[in-house]
Amino acid sequence: MIKIGLLGFGTVAGSFYDLVEENREGLEKITGQKIEFKKILVRNIGKYNRCKNLLTINKEDIFEDREINLIVEATGEVDRLASPIEEALKRGVNVISANKALISKYLERLILTSKKSKASLKFEGAVGGAIPILSNIEKLKAAGGVKKVIGVLNGTSNFILSQIENGLSFEKALELAKEKGYAEADPSADIDGIDTMRKINITSSLLFDKFFKEEEIETIGIRKINEDRIKDALKSGKTIKLIGYGDKNGKIYVRPEELEKNSILGSLKGGENAIVFFTENAGEIVIKGMGAGGRETAYSLVSDLIDIYGK
Amino acid sequence: MIKIGLLGFGTVAGSFYDLVEENREGLEKITGQKIEFKKILVRNIGKYNRCKNLLTINKEDIFEDREINLIVEATGEVDRLASPIEEALKRGVNVISANKALISKYLERLILTSKKSKASLKFEGAVGGAIPILSNIEKLKAAGGVKKVIGVLNGTSNFILSQIENGLSFEKALELAKEKGYAEADPSADIDGIDTMRKINITSSLLFDKFFKEEEIETIGIRKINEDRIKDALKSGKTIKLIGYGDKNGKIYVRPEELEKNSILGSLKGGENAIVFFTENAGEIVIKGMGAGGRETAYSLVSDLIDIYGK
Repeated sequence: MIKIGLLGFGTVAGSFYDLVEENREGLEKITGQKIEFKKILVRNIGKYNRCKNLLTINKEDIFEDREINLIVEATGEVDRLASPIEEALKRGVNVISANKALISKYLERLILTSKKSKASLKFEGAVGGAIPILSNIEKLKAAGGVKKVIGVLNGTSNFILSQIENGLSFEKALELAKEKGYAEADPSADIDGIDTMRKINITSSLLFDKFFKEEEIETIGIRKINEDRIKDALKSGKTIKLIGYGDKNGKIYVRPEELEKNSILGSLKGGENAIVFFTENAGEIVIKGMGAGGRETAYSLVSDLIDIYGK
Repeated sequence: MIKIGLLGFGTVAGSFYDLVEENREGLEKITGQKIEFKKILVRNIGKYNRCKNLLTINKEDIFEDREINLIVEATGEVDRLASPIEEALKRGVNVISANKALISKYLERLILTSKKSKASLKFEGAVGGAIPILSNIEKLKAAGGVKKVIGVLNGTSNFILSQIENGLSFEKALELAKEKGYAEADPSADIDGIDTMRKINITSSLLFDKFFKEEEIETIGIRKINEDRIKDALKSGKTIKLIGYGDKNGKIYVRPEELEKNSILGSLKGGENAIVFFTENAGEIVIKGMGAGGRETAYSLVSDLIDIYGK
């Protein structure tokens, strides 16, 4: 029996709960096991109208429950949860996370711990929302590997940049992004490139078997972008996108770059993300989809669950 | 130990042999097993300058060798190999194939046999060349499934259609495709839509848990395409592509359709293929890459091997 401790009950974690309930029959068939939600960690119990008997505000209720064999984490927390998650992995508890901040920062520790204990650690949702990026990496590596990877991985930056193309100033575009719910009250993770840095960090680490330090990844966001540069690009059929880059020589960076407007990365709109793997033996492989969204990211959590328990 | 009987030693099968040798260390680590090529079935031993001691022209040398536990098939044969492969699956021998003609025609029989005997049957290379299409299907299904799927899956048709856009007649474009090696001497599988039909048949069967009869799939190729229709489309920013379509209501067809020139399917060039999954919960997921080519398709054979033996 898969007994889940769910960390968080916001859009992503809540959607994961829904997806499991809606597809319980198929999932129990694929995994060959019953699935039970044992407890759900939240900050404020009063906020939720369902699953009342599962909710707790004490993380010990989950991390000290020895029946829980799978932790699914989709919170915005970083340092407070890293050590308990590491301890859980040590005990052989499987972990699925959609939390890029936590995974990017603690990647090396968590991966080494999970390798030692043979607990599974999966975090597809932390990189591509709904896009199956990480699950394709092992195979890409085994058949000769990847030379370099380039991704457009931040929907908020996409939105703002295309509004500037439409004639808005950066400030106006950011305001509009906030109004439309694309940008958060504090948009720095998006517009300063931090979000993209985390995603390309995680992807490159797995692809190239090398751990990077976040603070050593050159990260230039779009906050100070020159609006004229965007308009000039447009005139020659180009477009500026915030890209994350990694290669097998260990080069890794995040910065706005000029792309052909009608290339696959250049033509992405709004919440669309895409990543291009330049492989040794299989040409370019491109995967594109919705990079964020509650149900979309929850879909990746379900994918991870199948990866761990499937067959 | 994985003991392989390789059927065929042309571009794809030969590249599979090379990829395994080049990446033997990694593959043996991932599978936890030694890998050995036991025998290779060819039509004409004199054609090959290597692996002389492995080559045979008698299929019994492979199908009656009880040590062989994995058959990797990349021939152009259909009816002659279907029954021996089915018998092998019955005995528990795992099978990987890149042969779309064989898989599409015998899909139901082979899948039901493999389910009964619990032998693995994989055929990623039969659909997308290097593109990981089938390997993503199980997860898509488990998290709510797919409403419909649309693919541009035939590079030869892509090439010919874009040459017509450039002003050539259909006949001239086909001639050029033959000259450049994109089309075979007998190009009917490509230009009559058969190749696309096989690929969408295999994909839709797995996606929607329903077996189609090849002859019942409405299949219109590009042989009789109206050149003016292509030019008219072009004028309004559109382009004609040969698409394969399948949906969860059991609708399935192949025909030339008008697409936006700058959409992801509309902008494909030459050997590029792509497929769009319209999912219930994860938005649209697009996977794009090289749909053919020896090493590219061989890469998918290696992926399948990892899927079977990995972890």
